[in-house]
Amino acid sequence: VIERLAEAFGRGRGAEVWAGDDAAVLAPPSRVLLVTTDMLVEGIDFELSYASGADVGFKALSTGVSDIAAMGGMAQRAVVSLGLSPSSPLSLLDALIEGLSDARARYGTDVVGGDISGSAELNITATVFGGTGERGPVLRSGARPGDAVCVTGSLGAAAGGLFVLRRGLNDPSLSISPERKEAFGRLVTRHLRPEARVSAGAGLAGTATSMIDLSDGLAMDLGHLTRAAGTGCSIDVATIPVDEDLKALAATVTDEAIDPLEAAITGGEDFELLFTVPAEAVQEARVSVGEAGVTVLGAMDDTGRVSLGDRSLESWIERSWEHLT
Amino acid sequence: VIERLAEAFGRGRGAEVWAGDDAAVLAPPSRVLLVTTDMLVEGIDFELSYASGADVGFKALSTGVSDIAAMGGMAQRAVVSLGLSPSSPLSLLDALIEGLSDARARYGTDVVGGDISGSAELNITATVFGGTGERGPVLRSGARPGDAVCVTGSLGAAAGGLFVLRRGLNDPSLSISPERKEAFGRLVTRHLRPEARVSAGAGLAGTATSMIDLSDGLAMDLGHLTRAAGTGCSIDVATIPVDEDLKALAATVTDEAIDPLEAAITGGEDFELLFTVPAEAVQEARVSVGEAGVTVLGAMDDTGRVSLGDRSLESWIERSWEHLT
Repeated sequence: VIERLAEAFGRGRGAEVWAGDDAAVLAPPSRVLLVTTDMLVEGIDFELSYASGADVGFKALSTGVSDIAAMGGMAQRAVVSLGLSPSSPLSLLDALIEGLSDARARYGTDVVGGDISGSAELNITATVFGGTGERGPVLRSGARPGDAVCVTGSLGAAAGGLFVLRRGLNDPSLSISPERKEAFGRLVTRHLRPEARVSAGAGLAGTATSMIDLSDGLAMDLGHLTRAAGTGCSIDVATIPVDEDLKALAATVTDEAIDPLEAAITGGEDFELLFTVPAEAVQEARVSVGEAGVTVLGAMDDTGRVSLGDRSLESWIERSWEHLT
Repeated sequence: VIERLAEAFGRGRGAEVWAGDDAAVLAPPSRVLLVTTDMLVEGIDFELSYASGADVGFKALSTGVSDIAAMGGMAQRAVVSLGLSPSSPLSLLDALIEGLSDARARYGTDVVGGDISGSAELNITATVFGGTGERGPVLRSGARPGDAVCVTGSLGAAAGGLFVLRRGLNDPSLSISPERKEAFGRLVTRHLRPEARVSAGAGLAGTATSMIDLSDGLAMDLGHLTRAAGTGCSIDVATIPVDEDLKALAATVTDEAIDPLEAAITGGEDFELLFTVPAEAVQEARVSVGEAGVTVLGAMDDTGRVSLGDRSLESWIERSWEHLT
């Protein structure tokens, strides 16, 4: 198996030695080393009934790359450990490798080693490491009262994609308009193949005073950011960039099971970047982020609490957990 | 949970930022970065009927530290991902943290981050990072025909410990002499709490032409070393340093279920270092390794095959697999 990984991902570059020794030998990425590790487990983080092995492999690497991007860094290398059921087909391993390869092609993050073992359910742990330019890293803790609170892209799409998958709304035999089918397909892609905001993250290093990737959802991640900085913040919920495809989904689902604003606030795994900048640097941030787009949601303050519409943060977070269960 | 890890292992040192951000921010360890990842899974690599959570945590970190030691490096940092059954007691997490803390105290390897998820069986993946001095790293591939093939310490103890645990021979109520009980206890410790040969590994950098830690067993690991170097080797089985406690175990078990020499050749997880040095450097290697001791097993040659007593390498490796199943 290690041999197959080495065939898929290579054995080294320059003086580096990847798979095939006791440890990989790498060049240090920069004056700092950024490291993150994330585990995805079948039945908790995904179901193989709707996610392919390739989706799982892609997402495992994407999740770590997104963490590094949220530090203003570039993810250069990764090691992966796989737990595979002895009864799973060999094609599942091939699919996982294919998904990891897709992510490598997308991000330039080489898989330089790994381990494999048996497991009742499929699990994959990706440890991703990288470095920063001279202006990084961007910590969660650097926000100051008065800073603008900003987010890239649109929110709630990954939650919408999960809803589509669970309800089977991507079944090609359903009589849904081609436009809706396309919208649902984009939502599914946002859930199964989330893209880390690599260039936006690196571009914001030096401008952003704090940054986090939206993996737990806007409400929880605002809590993380303000707690780390010892600040509070006030968010205007009317500004939240609710994903357009999510709105289309909500308009289609007649039992009103989806409130798009709530999904945008509580849905996790969008992997957009939530960051703060001094108010006068918002334009500079827009230029750095480019076509992903930047929305100003509100401002940091010194209240020590997150003000997010007419509900308390705790009440939003409770709803996040309901989404998860 | 992340908070408990941070409490147990700290939040940083100097300019480093450990748990609590998207990624850990570390100083690069040396002019090269060594990385290894290993996963231990309940039911495959250990059973909680005989291994405590603390044993599992210790061994997970030890395994990675040993890999780095086998490169002639020092393991400085680690990230850990845990899969825990929702039904497992909270005390299991505490025990895992305790074992990781024991390993940190033993090796100076800080746990700087991690992830946790649910899982049907307990699993733990440790990704360990380190660096080398000016004379490292030591690869598997550097051996030359004529080099002496050497090993540290004694072999077969971990396999003996597993046998003791599976047969329940460490039951205090058994009528066994105190000397035997002590010997069995040492074997169990070698299995449950294996120690990585850190100072020996670092000391051999610059002298050893190739090195590997004995995780798969002498037979398989000789195969790895010769294959990586494109050499063969000839081993005198009479020189193999069979563990004395293992011999005592074999003498006690009357049904002769244990052949100590075979266990020393095929048993894995001793985490001793198997290495090669030019013949004239054996004495220098002895000085570097110190009290762990060095045994010369034979010599590298250009035959392209491993000669190991009167059986073929394949036949020994088949027996290794029998041990594992």
